[in-house]
Amino acid sequence: MKIGKATVPRTSICTSDEHSIVVRGRDLSKDLIGKVSFVEHFFLLLTGKPPSAGEAAVLNATLVAIAEHGLVPSVQAARMTFAAAPDAMQGAVAAGILGCGSVVLGSSETAGRMYSEIDAQVQAGTAVGTAALAVMQAWRAAGQTIPGYGHPQHKARDARVGALFDVARAAGTDLRFVAIAEAVESLMPQVLNKDLRLNVSGAIPAVLLGAGFPVQALKGVPILARTAGLIAHLFEEIQQPIGFALSYQATRAMVYDGELPEGFGSHE
Amino acid sequence: MKIGKATVPRTSICTSDEHSIVVRGRDLSKDLIGKVSFVEHFFLLLTGKPPSAGEAAVLNATLVAIAEHGLVPSVQAARMTFAAAPDAMQGAVAAGILGCGSVVLGSSETAGRMYSEIDAQVQAGTAVGTAALAVMQAWRAAGQTIPGYGHPQHKARDARVGALFDVARAAGTDLRFVAIAEAVESLMPQVLNKDLRLNVSGAIPAVLLGAGFPVQALKGVPILARTAGLIAHLFEEIQQPIGFALSYQATRAMVYDGELPEGFGSHE
Amino acid sequence: MKIGKATVPRTSICTSDEHSIVVRGRDLSKDLIGKVSFVEHFFLLLTGKPPSAGEAAVLNATLVAIAEHGLVPSVQAARMTFAAAPDAMQGAVAAGILGCGSVVLGSSETAGRMYSEIDAQVQAGTAVGTAALAVMQAWRAAGQTIPGYGHPQHKARDARVGALFDVARAAGTDLRFVAIAEAVESLMPQVLNKDLRLNVSGAIPAVLLGAGFPVQALKGVPILARTAGLIAHLFEEIQQPIGFALSYQATRAMVYDGELPEGFGSHE
Amino acid sequence: MKIGKATVPRTSICTSDEHSIVVRGRDLSKDLIGKVSFVEHFFLLLTGKPPSAGEAAVLNATLVAIAEHGLVPSVQAARMTFAAAPDAMQGAVAAGILGCGSVVLGSSETAGRMYSEIDAQVQAGTAVGTAALAVMQAWRAAGQTIPGYGHPQHKARDARVGALFDVARAAGTDLRFVAIAEAVESLMPQVLNKDLRLNVSGAIPAVLLGAGFPVQALKGVPILARTAGLIAHLFEEIQQPIGFALSYQATRAMVYDGELPEGFGSHE
Repeated sequence: MKIGKATVPRTSICTSDEHSIVVRGRDLSKDLIGKVSFVEHFFLLLTGKPPSAGEAAVLNATLVAIAEHGLVPSVQAARMTFAAAPDAMQGAVAAGILGCGSVVLGSSETAGRMYSEIDAQVQAGTAVGTAALAVMQAWRAAGQTIPGYGHPQHKARDARVGALFDVARAAGTDLRFVAIAEAVESLMPQVLNKDLRLNVSGAIPAVLLGAGFPVQALKGVPILARTAGLIAHLFEEIQQPIGFALSYQATRAMVYDGELPEGFGSHE
Repeated sequence: MKIGKATVPRTSICTSDEHSIVVRGRDLSKDLIGKVSFVEHFFLLLTGKPPSAGEAAVLNATLVAIAEHGLVPSVQAARMTFAAAPDAMQGAVAAGILGCGSVVLGSSETAGRMYSEIDAQVQAGTAVGTAALAVMQAWRAAGQTIPGYGHPQHKARDARVGALFDVARAAGTDLRFVAIAEAVESLMPQVLNKDLRLNVSGAIPAVLLGAGFPVQALKGVPILARTAGLIAHLFEEIQQPIGFALSYQATRAMVYDGELPEGFGSHE
Repeated sequence: MKIGKATVPRTSICTSDEHSIVVRGRDLSKDLIGKVSFVEHFFLLLTGKPPSAGEAAVLNATLVAIAEHGLVPSVQAARMTFAAAPDAMQGAVAAGILGCGSVVLGSSETAGRMYSEIDAQVQAGTAVGTAALAVMQAWRAAGQTIPGYGHPQHKARDARVGALFDVARAAGTDLRFVAIAEAVESLMPQVLNKDLRLNVSGAIPAVLLGAGFPVQALKGVPILARTAGLIAHLFEEIQQPIGFALSYQATRAMVYDGELPEGFGSHE
Repeated sequence: MKIGKATVPRTSICTSDEHSIVVRGRDLSKDLIGKVSFVEHFFLLLTGKPPSAGEAAVLNATLVAIAEHGLVPSVQAARMTFAAAPDAMQGAVAAGILGCGSVVLGSSETAGRMYSEIDAQVQAGTAVGTAALAVMQAWRAAGQTIPGYGHPQHKARDARVGALFDVARAAGTDLRFVAIAEAVESLMPQVLNKDLRLNVSGAIPAVLLGAGFPVQALKGVPILARTAGLIAHLFEEIQQPIGFALSYQATRAMVYDGELPEGFGSHE
């Protein structure tokens, strides 16, 4: 059945014949394996051109920053899934990735879109603070939260934020989205009546958008980073299984607040 | 409900408090962000210690080698899924990762286990060729295929194999699993009556096992690598959608060989 | 780490002890197995009370209507995934379900929300046509499509629509959402300038909302229904594999529109 | 790229044209919607023929028996995933289904294969007890566990087992696999030195194989059943969120047994 207009599949990422695999115009075996790092390769796959040294440094830093944060819900979901289905590591990784959603890890992309909106006004001549205030108020008016600020555990500015900004400064990439992110931060008390500080999900687009990373691919950064963390957790799960222990602990304090049939529990 | 013995969840990968996140004994913001590459971080997460420069080079090379091979089934599954559910990039990545199974990308791990079995005999004093032959025959007798050899498209030795072996030689990592992989290759005509050459799934464990990468985590390499490729394809899908075109093309030659009710198609 | 406010997990669906499993206040083994059908059980699980005979008939009809439509993208994704990872049927089913997104199967829930908005105005005294027009215009003004109308293959009203409406009439369930759905259909030429007819995704909430099915669970109907279809396809895939054939066909007409390195293809 | 031999996709499940959808030779809108229940439809999709009343009763009973068991690991994984990604119910269902693996819910299929092996010997003239003992010993010798017996919570025979056997007896379907399952149960003390009783995963194939359900599709039964339970839990999660509470509880007793950098925790 035909859905939509396009009927011929087109791609400009990769082609191959019996002799070679071409990735973004380069011979994979001759020009890329051993010549570029995995993160440079990711940037090339995504954008069609290799990153500068500074762009690669920033992308590396963001992936390191977001790869791991302990037994968070997505890691628990992956370890429980692996405990139940140990033959399919890919299934456990998939279960973990499915938790990279709008609430927990998706705010990098949303923050990136907000910063891009502010940047469009700045490029058109508006002062950063004015543009930031206008966009923040517009988002609030539309019922949207301001993404990238506040953290359930880190009340002060998350230490990862400063570390990422330091990397961007040292890398010499464009810092204008960092300025925008900080403008938003300083306006939080005025707009939201809360002193919410930049978190890692706000800092990631702030440095990546200045490093040539496309805004529509931002969601890929936490997904790729967490995949590395998930694999480490699943390898630990093989050696020291806790998937079922997590599930047991989770329900020790459980309250069943539904109906019970007559006589339930009377055996005990 | 309690399943299994462990009831206390233990982990040695990561902990955190309000002030800092600790990954493998290091302060994430001070010691890792901007200090290590993402691939070094992945190795650290997995093994608990940072890789040598040579180990990192080998791991980078394997991830580059396997990240992308065009519109393969898992990429098609991911692009179709994204076309149908464009709000959930994580779901499309998950659908693609679910295709990293035993037939297509899982043979890296299986080959790694076979090489490790051979290596155990070699470490005990058996000659490489003798040990390889013994293990290959044992696997065949148990009805298992010899993983890591042959490719539907690349009949000669896949060019990625030589490229990976060159990286391992230049990196100065342990080459004994490369020797084992080549011993198996040279025995293929004798054992299988087929001249099947090393493919990339055989070369990956051959170089990684000598670079300190744990055999039980090998399946994570194609999973992490393909995640990068999948994100690039989904970003292309946003700009140039082909998910439904792929599905349309796939069924143009479809044959329905079931029953039909009377009168079906008589309108036309 | 604590995220959100609730810290005690509560549920009213199920509890158990060593002797019995209680589902929605009933003893699973004594009161449910062999006493209720799977679809009645699903309704009970979801709403906490058993459906009337009419409600069960309507729910059965919608699940039958949406379970199967041939080699659609989600089925292709599942069969390709199963071909690559045949040991993990759950992974292939998951890959298929991940395609139950906003574009392809999610419109049942969106249509249900639109009908509920119209119904709220009708309950407050507005005439059906007036309420339908107001809501349709509001959705259009907000940039949203009108969900549940039109089909790439079925230009006339999809035959499943009439069949579902007939079931609802025979079942004696509340028909007011059917009236709303038809009011929207008759206003399509006026609002959209297109004569788009009710499709199955519009008909499903039209009958289910009148059968006591909660609007927020509507997305579960295509998910559950398609799971049945996916399992049938994966069983066929075991006996007659086409996962890789679909992927091969999909790319026969593929155009690579990226760069090529010098000399690519000159071997041939 | 061509993988495998088949290049033409064939299916006998469904075809359609502009006017009608044909499922297993029947017109979906005229012959199936409102005429068959969802469970009968599932049987038809899978096997190509409608079930007898007894076969449908048995299939319904197994789906009811396995749909729900409280906050088990797969339900927790799904609820955590939904809390993190509330826009994608399909992703949360997929995460839950991915836990239908070999350890937790997959043993229905494995038990079915064991019963079929025993049955093959019985059909060839061996007594049930002799055949059961031979197959059990062969599985043990090959290092495989005997699937379908024992439960972490229900030490006596799970009450669902008797309920399912009662349904099969009342339905008049073939009871020979029930006899086989009970023969295996009675031999457990002799073969394993443990008095492990039939659990629901053993009872399901015992009744389904006698009701015309194909052994290779058995894994689909817990998958379809749990999908219904998962949807109920996700609907409850919308109304009464506990996904993050589960994850919080799970780690309250967590022990970090890795290294710590100097000064960690000294702020407090």
